Amino acid sequence: MSRLEALAKILEARAQATSGLVFNYTVPDLWNCFDYGGAELRKTPWGELVVNPYQFYLSVIRDFIQPKASARSGWGEPLNGSRELEPGLEGGDWIRRATVYSMMVRTSTAWDHDRSGSLEDVDLYGLKETGTFVKSLALLSLLHKMGITCVYLLPISKFSLKDKKGELGSPYGVSSFFELDPSLKDPMTGPDFTVEDEFRAFVEACHILGMHVMIDIIPRTNALDSDLILEHPDWFYWIRKEAMATYKPPYVPGLGTQVRPKAEFLPVIYQSEEVRQHLSSFQEDPAAADPGRWAELRARLEAHPEEGVLDAVRAAFGLTVAPAFSDQINDPQPAWTDVTFFRMYLDHPVAAVPFLDRAYAPYILFDVIKSNLFQGKVRNEPLWDLLAGIIPYYQREFGIDGARIDMGHALPKELVERIIHSARTVDPDFCFIAEEMEIERAEASRALGYNMILGDGFIQEPRVQEFKAHKYMYGAQSLPCPVYACGETHDTPRLAAREGGRTLSRLITILNLFVPNGVPFLNSGQEVYELQPMNTGLDCRPNEALLLDPKDPYYGRLALFDRYALHYLNPGRWELPDQLAWLAGLRQANLATFTRPGNAFLLGFNSPRDPGIAFGFRDDDARDAQREAGNLFVVVGNTDVHNSQYLTVQLQTMRAVSGNSARKGAQLFSSHGLAREVHDYDHRGDLSMSFQPGEVKIIRM
Amino acid sequence: MSRLEALAKILEARAQATSGLVFNYTVPDLWNCFDYGGAELRKTPWGELVVNPYQFYLSVIRDFIQPKASARSGWGEPLNGSRELEPGLEGGDWIRRATVYSMMVRTSTAWDHDRSGSLEDVDLYGLKETGTFVKSLALLSLLHKMGITCVYLLPISKFSLKDKKGELGSPYGVSSFFELDPSLKDPMTGPDFTVEDEFRAFVEACHILGMHVMIDIIPRTNALDSDLILEHPDWFYWIRKEAMATYKPPYVPGLGTQVRPKAEFLPVIYQSEEVRQHLSSFQEDPAAADPGRWAELRARLEAHPEEGVLDAVRAAFGLTVAPAFSDQINDPQPAWTDVTFFRMYLDHPVAAVPFLDRAYAPYILFDVIKSNLFQGKVRNEPLWDLLAGIIPYYQREFGIDGARIDMGHALPKELVERIIHSARTVDPDFCFIAEEMEIERAEASRALGYNMILGDGFIQEPRVQEFKAHKYMYGAQSLPCPVYACGETHDTPRLAAREGGRTLSRLITILNLFVPNGVPFLNSGQEVYELQPMNTGLDCRPNEALLLDPKDPYYGRLALFDRYALHYLNPGRWELPDQLAWLAGLRQANLATFTRPGNAFLLGFNSPRDPGIAFGFRDDDARDAQREAGNLFVVVGNTDVHNSQYLTVQLQTMRAVSGNSARKGAQLFSSHGLAREVHDYDHRGDLSMSFQPGEVKIIRM
Repeated sequence: MSRLEALAKILEARAQATSGLVFNYTVPDLWNCFDYGGAELRKTPWGELVVNPYQFYLSVIRDFIQPKASARSGWGEPLNGSRELEPGLEGGDWIRRATVYSMMVRTSTAWDHDRSGSLEDVDLYGLKETGTFVKSLALLSLLHKMGITCVYLLPISKFSLKDKKGELGSPYGVSSFFELDPSLKDPMTGPDFTVEDEFRAFVEACHILGMHVMIDIIPRTNALDSDLILEHPDWFYWIRKEAMATYKPPYVPGLGTQVRPKAEFLPVIYQSEEVRQHLSSFQEDPAAADPGRWAELRARLEAHPEEGVLDAVRAAFGLTVAPAFSDQINDPQPAWTDVTFFRMYLDHPVAAVPFLDRAYAPYILFDVIKSNLFQGKVRNEPLWDLLAGIIPYYQREFGIDGARIDMGHALPKELVERIIHSARTVDPDFCFIAEEMEIERAEASRALGYNMILGDGFIQEPRVQEFKAHKYMYGAQSLPCPVYACGETHDTPRLAAREGGRTLSRLITILNLFVPNGVPFLNSGQEVYELQPMNTGLDCRPNEALLLDPKDPYYGRLALFDRYALHYLNPGRWELPDQLAWLAGLRQANLATFTRPGNAFLLGFNSPRDPGIAFGFRDDDARDAQREAGNLFVVVGNTDVHNSQYLTVQLQTMRAVSGNSARKGAQLFSSHGLAREVHDYDHRGDLSMSFQPGEVKIIRM
Repeated sequence: MSRLEALAKILEARAQATSGLVFNYTVPDLWNCFDYGGAELRKTPWGELVVNPYQFYLSVIRDFIQPKASARSGWGEPLNGSRELEPGLEGGDWIRRATVYSMMVRTSTAWDHDRSGSLEDVDLYGLKETGTFVKSLALLSLLHKMGITCVYLLPISKFSLKDKKGELGSPYGVSSFFELDPSLKDPMTGPDFTVEDEFRAFVEACHILGMHVMIDIIPRTNALDSDLILEHPDWFYWIRKEAMATYKPPYVPGLGTQVRPKAEFLPVIYQSEEVRQHLSSFQEDPAAADPGRWAELRARLEAHPEEGVLDAVRAAFGLTVAPAFSDQINDPQPAWTDVTFFRMYLDHPVAAVPFLDRAYAPYILFDVIKSNLFQGKVRNEPLWDLLAGIIPYYQREFGIDGARIDMGHALPKELVERIIHSARTVDPDFCFIAEEMEIERAEASRALGYNMILGDGFIQEPRVQEFKAHKYMYGAQSLPCPVYACGETHDTPRLAAREGGRTLSRLITILNLFVPNGVPFLNSGQEVYELQPMNTGLDCRPNEALLLDPKDPYYGRLALFDRYALHYLNPGRWELPDQLAWLAGLRQANLATFTRPGNAFLLGFNSPRDPGIAFGFRDDDARDAQREAGNLFVVVGNTDVHNSQYLTVQLQTMRAVSGNSARKGAQLFSSHGLAREVHDYDHRGDLSMSFQPGEVKIIRM
């Protein structure tokens, strides 16, 4: 039986069993884009709905998701797994037409359902207030409304709770690749339905709604107390536990700060006094140091796994796993205390050997970290096999459709190829996204088999005043693979918290739907103008984590580490979802027009310093014909988020190519106004219109 | 069995029956000044408590109220009913030592318990969200903390819902004196425990906590569709129903506006064209007009009371009861559409007869309204008997201790005396408060048997900048009976909404505890700095009803007519209650000192325009002795609510009388600071101290 159907049956039984009970359990109205009709439903004036949770989540399956299931069965299989590839596209290139929503299950469906003032593990009703896959089914109704076709999940694997960051720990400190984070288990389903079952049901639901599911896998790093230590102590780097107190990335004089390691820097790196001290602090792994004692310890821990492997090793051997740190030389950030690196090679980097004055135990250093650039001779084959097996596990078990590879840029090329190959063997249309921010490296990523790269839109796009948004959005078209059209991620400041606030956020979010060769990417919370970042990893101001009202219950909290619920009750919460819903209709009805390479025109203005971004699109079904009218879309945004602007969009080239000579058009959409006829052409036939601050208009002509 | 005990037993049974159920039912933490210890209790960060309502209200009885019951029984009897009067005091003069809290049951314990966003009659749990006597038991814990010793209830009798004002109607439109407002019935107790039982339990609880209970009775007016019409149509004034459209207080040229009627104005009044038209609109009562048809109608209505008497009379006779209006000539306010006047006399005012040009049906006019000044010859004896029987009914049925007589100033002197006499026959210590705002008329009220008058502190006290507070507070001592020391009532603006805001409210509220010959009076909501008035009857600005944030659920609502809950979650909610709690301890420990006439000194400052109010008190137990130190209290307030002030309080007279020559004292209390030693005396021995804006200090010396 389908896991979604099994889940529905469980909820049905619970709904019946609880039908006489009063539930003062609330969900934000944004989770109800399926017109829930439970008899017990009450709507509060501020946007919370009071519901019987079992009825509510049952209804989203029965009344919203399942009726959308077409005749096809096997929704638990990858969405495109058995399909022929489109001509001209490679496996996984469906991402070119996708609209991606990045969510963190724990946070995106967190809610203080009983309004006790805290997000409890067990609330008044015995239910979980942090997010779960089951609750995410309701959120899917919002995603569907907004035209999302791909759900990208931040890590969902089991992570370490040892020395955890924040209240809950970071899901990036993975301790076991082949178990799901047990905190995502929903108590509504009882003990017989596992969190794995719940994820399966979620994937099925996404597939029925036409959404691909992508996950984030993290093959370069692992939790300090990884479950793998016990069997494979030699896959890790070791230091004496006393050395932890002074452990840090060693300073290399003479190279400046935040320098990417290159071969020519190695002599300088290895001459550094701090580097030599650093290297000396590493030790043989405990099994190598004392195989007999290791065997004893291993036997004991297998009998008593609750003891905790890292604590046991520390106690027995005085050794501990060495923390990871940035791959950039002289990066000011300290060591990452919750994760370490895997030993990709069992020997030192070949290029480094000439600079080593003696035999050192396996060590972490900038070159070692960048194992794509600095390789050893002896591959850690069992590790590589394990890493290449992660995605196939998630494909077979859950039917996922794609993955982003975290720190893929620091993996040996051969390992990346092996990972990609393994996945594409299972599903030739599996999509891979490279964590590659440098758009210059798009070609290399494409060559490795990635379908697209991240890019750094989240740094460039918010900077409209410096014209960086313009450069990024106009530049994407010339890249050999798509990039994310993306104004914020879980690691960056929120668009609504940048200079320009909500006006900027709306401008960028809407324009991103139309960036040629860009894949629209929405970060959970972006649709409700969330201010607080989920993490302060990239491009953050010193006060970035303190943007909320100090009286806000989530003041100073970061979703990546803490209990956090998005501000779903924000009075402007429906503004972007409603506009995105309309735009999704336009996009879906003209998907080939907006996404097929060659249809787009980069449109200029009277002056290169005019604050505007404009794209033209020629109808895909008329791309080889000339037409006098009715074959073009023009999308124009006023990138001045503070002032109204009168902008003239140059159309001559596009008119010449398409044959369009229309002097009348239709304003289909404005972020600030209504649909209307357009007669605003100048004597040359260029569009000349007035825009409110940050306004985006879409003209059909 | 005591009704309180019976109530406890009912709640106990319901608490047991519901012990397994989840209640997401909240109360404001201010209602829990008894340290509720239910296992299910959860506290939200913003001040709501999540409780099982049955457990919670049970606990306030079992754990807070009942343990305070002394050996005396009969808590349902008037508190002082069987006691000897104190020498020098007359019956009811216990009010001189009281601290009064004015509450409106429907509003004071209203709460959105299920947080649905509206105050429902039947909430998620089937419970009532407007106030009830049962819920008021919890509020008593706050009142007890604040030192309240007398609870004064706005009208609790059944009122008319016909053409009601606002959402719920005004409790001042009484339709039956001998029934309680059925909307005050609490569903927690089920159908077998009546609202009368609940009021009895409430009175018992008050008495156990040492609080007298006073009610508001309204003998001058009655609802337009009074239950009394059916039996006594001749007790009312009648007009043709078509005349309602143009009905208004008639204009009298040549007298100015808002003029109190006097005998010498009668010629002018009765010459007015509008007055003559007004008189002509009145009709004989329907029974007199057609006794046969009246008998039929009466028989029908007795069989079908649901039909509504006034509607039936309108339909059958084309007549309707004439609305009341202000007793002041040319008052700009329109007729009061929900009440009428009783016919106190069955003939026209004797003084008016010479000016009547023909026989008129009984009519309402300024002289008729002021039946204390303009009497007829034929008393309406059955009505007078009924009105004089109201209070004895409440005494016998519920054990109340006192009453305020609404519009007593417009009742014939003989009727007032009859009302007072009837009540004092039942309970010689029954207290009467005259609705008399003119302090010049204190003597007359005292002569009628009233214990005290209202005064107009709520108009004078807020006006600190005009020194009206000073005049009122210093002036009270010379009055022949006490007045309320009172900065706001249910009819006036809130102190916190006046110029000076919370600073003013705190200053006046605290000083009121010490006004010589003043009875401290707290208006429900005043303790949490409520901004919105309950009614805009007196001294209100045009925007007085629009003081809340437009997004506030109670924006524009008035408690007297609408569903309204006080802002019990206000972040400053504990400020005044905590200070009042401390001050109550001081007052109770020195009650005779602060309240016995002759102990108080009115203290001056260096200049009469210094912004200060100061009172001295000589220890009551040393009032006939001279002591060098330790026999005086000084209470000083800085009446400048915007600026710090350095004030010098003149102590010479008080020192001379009391013998006190201390140059050292103890600051027991400051509204803005801590206790400390006081050495701040100048060369003359006067207190010279610095005060923060609105600060009150209490010095012991």
